[in-house]
Amino acid sequence: MASRVKVAIVGASGYSGEELVRLLLAHPRVQLAAVTSRQYVGKSLAEVFPKFSQYATARALRFSEPDAAKLAKAAKVVFLALPHGVAAEFAVPLLKLGCRVIDLSADFRLNNAAVYKDFYNHDHPAPELLAKSVYGLPEVYRNKIKSAKLVASPGCYPTSILLPVLPLLRKGLVKPTGIIADSLSGVSGAGRKAEQDYLFVECNESVRPYGIPKHRHLSEIEQELTIAAGEPVVIQFTPHLIPVNRGILTTLYLAPEKHFADAKAMAALNEKVSACYQAAYAEEPFVRLLEGKALPDTKNVVGTNVIEIAWRLDARTGRLIVMSAEDNLVKGASGQAVQSLNILCGFPETAGLI
Amino acid sequence: MASRVKVAIVGASGYSGEELVRLLLAHPRVQLAAVTSRQYVGKSLAEVFPKFSQYATARALRFSEPDAAKLAKAAKVVFLALPHGVAAEFAVPLLKLGCRVIDLSADFRLNNAAVYKDFYNHDHPAPELLAKSVYGLPEVYRNKIKSAKLVASPGCYPTSILLPVLPLLRKGLVKPTGIIADSLSGVSGAGRKAEQDYLFVECNESVRPYGIPKHRHLSEIEQELTIAAGEPVVIQFTPHLIPVNRGILTTLYLAPEKHFADAKAMAALNEKVSACYQAAYAEEPFVRLLEGKALPDTKNVVGTNVIEIAWRLDARTGRLIVMSAEDNLVKGASGQAVQSLNILCGFPETAGLI
Amino acid sequence: MASRVKVAIVGASGYSGEELVRLLLAHPRVQLAAVTSRQYVGKSLAEVFPKFSQYATARALRFSEPDAAKLAKAAKVVFLALPHGVAAEFAVPLLKLGCRVIDLSADFRLNNAAVYKDFYNHDHPAPELLAKSVYGLPEVYRNKIKSAKLVASPGCYPTSILLPVLPLLRKGLVKPTGIIADSLSGVSGAGRKAEQDYLFVECNESVRPYGIPKHRHLSEIEQELTIAAGEPVVIQFTPHLIPVNRGILTTLYLAPEKHFADAKAMAALNEKVSACYQAAYAEEPFVRLLEGKALPDTKNVVGTNVIEIAWRLDARTGRLIVMSAEDNLVKGASGQAVQSLNILCGFPETAGLI
Amino acid sequence: MASRVKVAIVGASGYSGEELVRLLLAHPRVQLAAVTSRQYVGKSLAEVFPKFSQYATARALRFSEPDAAKLAKAAKVVFLALPHGVAAEFAVPLLKLGCRVIDLSADFRLNNAAVYKDFYNHDHPAPELLAKSVYGLPEVYRNKIKSAKLVASPGCYPTSILLPVLPLLRKGLVKPTGIIADSLSGVSGAGRKAEQDYLFVECNESVRPYGIPKHRHLSEIEQELTIAAGEPVVIQFTPHLIPVNRGILTTLYLAPEKHFADAKAMAALNEKVSACYQAAYAEEPFVRLLEGKALPDTKNVVGTNVIEIAWRLDARTGRLIVMSAEDNLVKGASGQAVQSLNILCGFPETAGLI
Repeated sequence: MASRVKVAIVGASGYSGEELVRLLLAHPRVQLAAVTSRQYVGKSLAEVFPKFSQYATARALRFSEPDAAKLAKAAKVVFLALPHGVAAEFAVPLLKLGCRVIDLSADFRLNNAAVYKDFYNHDHPAPELLAKSVYGLPEVYRNKIKSAKLVASPGCYPTSILLPVLPLLRKGLVKPTGIIADSLSGVSGAGRKAEQDYLFVECNESVRPYGIPKHRHLSEIEQELTIAAGEPVVIQFTPHLIPVNRGILTTLYLAPEKHFADAKAMAALNEKVSACYQAAYAEEPFVRLLEGKALPDTKNVVGTNVIEIAWRLDARTGRLIVMSAEDNLVKGASGQAVQSLNILCGFPETAGLI
Repeated sequence: MASRVKVAIVGASGYSGEELVRLLLAHPRVQLAAVTSRQYVGKSLAEVFPKFSQYATARALRFSEPDAAKLAKAAKVVFLALPHGVAAEFAVPLLKLGCRVIDLSADFRLNNAAVYKDFYNHDHPAPELLAKSVYGLPEVYRNKIKSAKLVASPGCYPTSILLPVLPLLRKGLVKPTGIIADSLSGVSGAGRKAEQDYLFVECNESVRPYGIPKHRHLSEIEQELTIAAGEPVVIQFTPHLIPVNRGILTTLYLAPEKHFADAKAMAALNEKVSACYQAAYAEEPFVRLLEGKALPDTKNVVGTNVIEIAWRLDARTGRLIVMSAEDNLVKGASGQAVQSLNILCGFPETAGLI
Repeated sequence: MASRVKVAIVGASGYSGEELVRLLLAHPRVQLAAVTSRQYVGKSLAEVFPKFSQYATARALRFSEPDAAKLAKAAKVVFLALPHGVAAEFAVPLLKLGCRVIDLSADFRLNNAAVYKDFYNHDHPAPELLAKSVYGLPEVYRNKIKSAKLVASPGCYPTSILLPVLPLLRKGLVKPTGIIADSLSGVSGAGRKAEQDYLFVECNESVRPYGIPKHRHLSEIEQELTIAAGEPVVIQFTPHLIPVNRGILTTLYLAPEKHFADAKAMAALNEKVSACYQAAYAEEPFVRLLEGKALPDTKNVVGTNVIEIAWRLDARTGRLIVMSAEDNLVKGASGQAVQSLNILCGFPETAGLI
Repeated sequence: MASRVKVAIVGASGYSGEELVRLLLAHPRVQLAAVTSRQYVGKSLAEVFPKFSQYATARALRFSEPDAAKLAKAAKVVFLALPHGVAAEFAVPLLKLGCRVIDLSADFRLNNAAVYKDFYNHDHPAPELLAKSVYGLPEVYRNKIKSAKLVASPGCYPTSILLPVLPLLRKGLVKPTGIIADSLSGVSGAGRKAEQDYLFVECNESVRPYGIPKHRHLSEIEQELTIAAGEPVVIQFTPHLIPVNRGILTTLYLAPEKHFADAKAMAALNEKVSACYQAAYAEEPFVRLLEGKALPDTKNVVGTNVIEIAWRLDARTGRLIVMSAEDNLVKGASGQAVQSLNILCGFPETAGLI
């Protein structure tokens, strides 16, 4: 495996970390060289996750304490799958030691430390890095990711909202005001935390909104929408918890810039929306534009790095409804991070992801 | 059981029908005197639904062919738990024979046969009855239900939308324009139909929108919102299917009539919304207004006739978010129908429902 | 509510405790006078469990610290819904203060302190009470329960095994050797513990055996089987965790005392088994013997105090297969405890349970 | 793709068929050249299953009517994913036309047409082929599969029982009498049939036994156990339906040939069992022997071709408990069929499966 790129995962025992392990063990161009987890120090990957024991690497590789110096020796690229606030502690020394870092937390997604403080309720731990990090949404920032030292991989909700909305905003097809994103997330989005709210019995046969009206992910969503619109965008975002392991379904309520008074105008607008999405995503390997009667369904994307997008114009209300479905742990987290790795390393972008 | 009111159920083997059976077997003031189901003619309730076999009535009562004359002999009040279009066929003769009818289908919910045709794609089967039927939402039409011959019990989605929105519209606290209702429904809402889309494997670990943008229930929702607003109301409604047996969670996006520019104005508006809901529902036995931090959760209403309502003002967007949770088969169907029965018969409104 | 019997629940915030609250709030003959929970001291039942807020008692009654003297003043009968080992701490003083105690833990189910130590790995905390406690399986010990000061309400697995097997053993229809009980339990059986193993994502889409081969409940199961058989009985018991909230399905593999060499002998034996069950349970309000082709299904008992039982003789293997289904939180815990309360207080045995 | 082996699937729209499509589209050594489904004739794979639309083959390949002559032209190897009885209709002409056939139905798994009739209630449709077919359990019949014209791929239950039991029987470590297999299956095992029993609402929050005591799969299970034991074996088998999409968990109750009277004898026997399994499976890529405290869990095998096996000796009962977990659609159906394809074509056995 000499020619493979050596990578490490800090925080490999949470759901995103475990999903990174799954993807990187099977990745044809990388060697998983180090995994850390305070809880499991000394145990092999195969012991903690028997399902990976088919891989020789999983049988041999043991969890270690997170130590930047050792990680930098072991790996060229380090993934951080840590809570926000903690990720920065590792990013700083790792970057100094010459590693490239792909951070799955929220620590480096914002350009502005003040916005970070407003939404995360503490000072940003390393504001000097904000200007250097690249928001790791490959469909938007592919070129910047290529040379990035620090990739801030987007959150699951933001991905499900940004990919459908950005092209429409950029083309001026929808108004930047009044946008509503109503999202339904599987329980793995809450992480592998032993909290009562996420017990099976509390989640099964239950559906509930939470974190309204000011969810933390709004900060990065609005930052990117604002860039696309060229003017400040504030949106409504309502997350709900639903009893599935994985998957996010987002329904977006948008106001077209042009009213469509009749069937002809509606058909014309529909054509424009279609052309806009085709231009943006026809060549993208991980965006599936649904045609005809199909609507997004999380079961069709779970386990894959694909986001499904469909839309409908409503003649009665004049609105454009756009819906997306993704796996919150893949396109919404670890798969997207591996996509950035592929770009960063010059691999085919789909390596290890199809 | 001589002094009990005799009731019958036409179509007692679907999910709403079965739920009616459950509620009526345990009801202290009624006697379940007849149940029909073409599929199960000749079998006892206990044979088809072993879980009811603790009741002597369930062991004795057999499913019969639906026959208006026999039903009218057997029962004073007849529940119709049938598909739309079919219910009218039974309502007409049953009313002529002197029965009071509580219809759980959509057949008599609309005042206007043209709207019916627009949304249901066929002529209304008995337009002459539309003027006589009462929309069976007890919190709104209690007085009319008392003397109604024909109660059109509301659908599950409409109930989840109307109860939260009507008081606000009546008080002029929110604008009648731009209303969005995003609803999540358990699979029993689709009925006990052997269709591939509703197989366990197709629904489990799946979340999906459907029936957009013009769901049939919009017709009755907009009719009632229009009455409350005193002007035509058109809303956006997006239903989603989620993998729970029962429960509807609706998130409503509303625009307050008055902008709230600062914290003080927001507190004042919040006070008004609270007062509005208290005035409307404080005495209602089946409406639970959530105070403090609690948000609706379907698991807290499943199996009961209660609808939970909570709201939040969003200082960032200026919107009022209202959320409701109900059991689609109880408050959204059979429980509400029994509530109407109680009103109609002069029983305590909570009889058999708490 | 002056004439109602006052009852208290110690440990009312776990799943069994919450289920007791549900049943006792609706019980026509009792007044819930005190509930304790260290976690929620000072909060009302309605605050902690909004779903009970329809009851005035739930709005008024606040969780208190568990204090035997205060509990004894407040209530005549006290339910203990506590972990084993802890329950005894409360039972001792409460009994001294004249309360009658219904304990849902394992502390007083065994007659023999040495067996307790063998299975629970610590000395019994109050061995002097073992001789006085009554095993609270009403179908077996109804008469003793009437006058019991201390009822040891059976566990969920034991109930699902004992009710089907005891009559057969007593009649000598099956051998007391080689019995196998294979049980599938919903996740609420693990209690409301914030442990990683019981997170939604860890349980959903997962089925797994656990606690084999020497589960603690074996001690009480074998004690009662031994009494019925009149000779020492040791059985095989394998519990599995399945992704449902509630319900236990137990499949029992039994060897008939008499071989059935041909169809006639098989029919004769089947007749005997049927007669045995009819004699034992035909009059029992909470045992449903399934006839014909029906097999037990947890969904038909969830939320009720009923256990379903069915059986099949297998001509190929000569075995008798018996299957049972119950709600682990009702007939397997809180419902059964209320059944004992009814017996103890001279109420109709079904009061508050149908 | 000239050098790839061309394969076809007859019956590609059921769950096994769809899983074959998934595996074969991603397989590095084959070209999916034809798929049939009467229901979807003329539609592309991508239209029917949008989740496959990332593959060019899925966008291009259209479902056709099943026609043996055309299939034989298009493909060298044909998979039959059809109901039993129907598969034989296609196997006969396809074999004559020179195709190699991998049949996922039960049609060619038995050596004896009389046994087939006894269990499937109709005459075998092509008894002359029974002697030529190879039972496609690679861990047992690898050498025969290499040159087989007709592979009868085993059922999901049989695989979950045979792989754990066969080595023990062959080594004489357990008695061939009194074997009990208690199995829990996900709902996809029932196929994509629009029947009421498999609706989401009927399966969710439900656990139930079915098909007892004489399930059809017993015929092939007992055939293979008999071969391994060298004497007729009759077993007890109880399948249960549990609310997961995929996965079978089987718990086996076995009697060791030698009693283990004390801890030393038990340790010795444990050693023998371990050695037996190591000898049989240490080199098998798709059998995972669990060591230490780990027990099988379906969530660790779902989506993979792996079967997990663990065992425990019970000092109290003298029994050996063996547990297995597999994905019923992969190792229990389509994955195993692809494993046979790999053997048959001389590919690495793990091609397209890891």
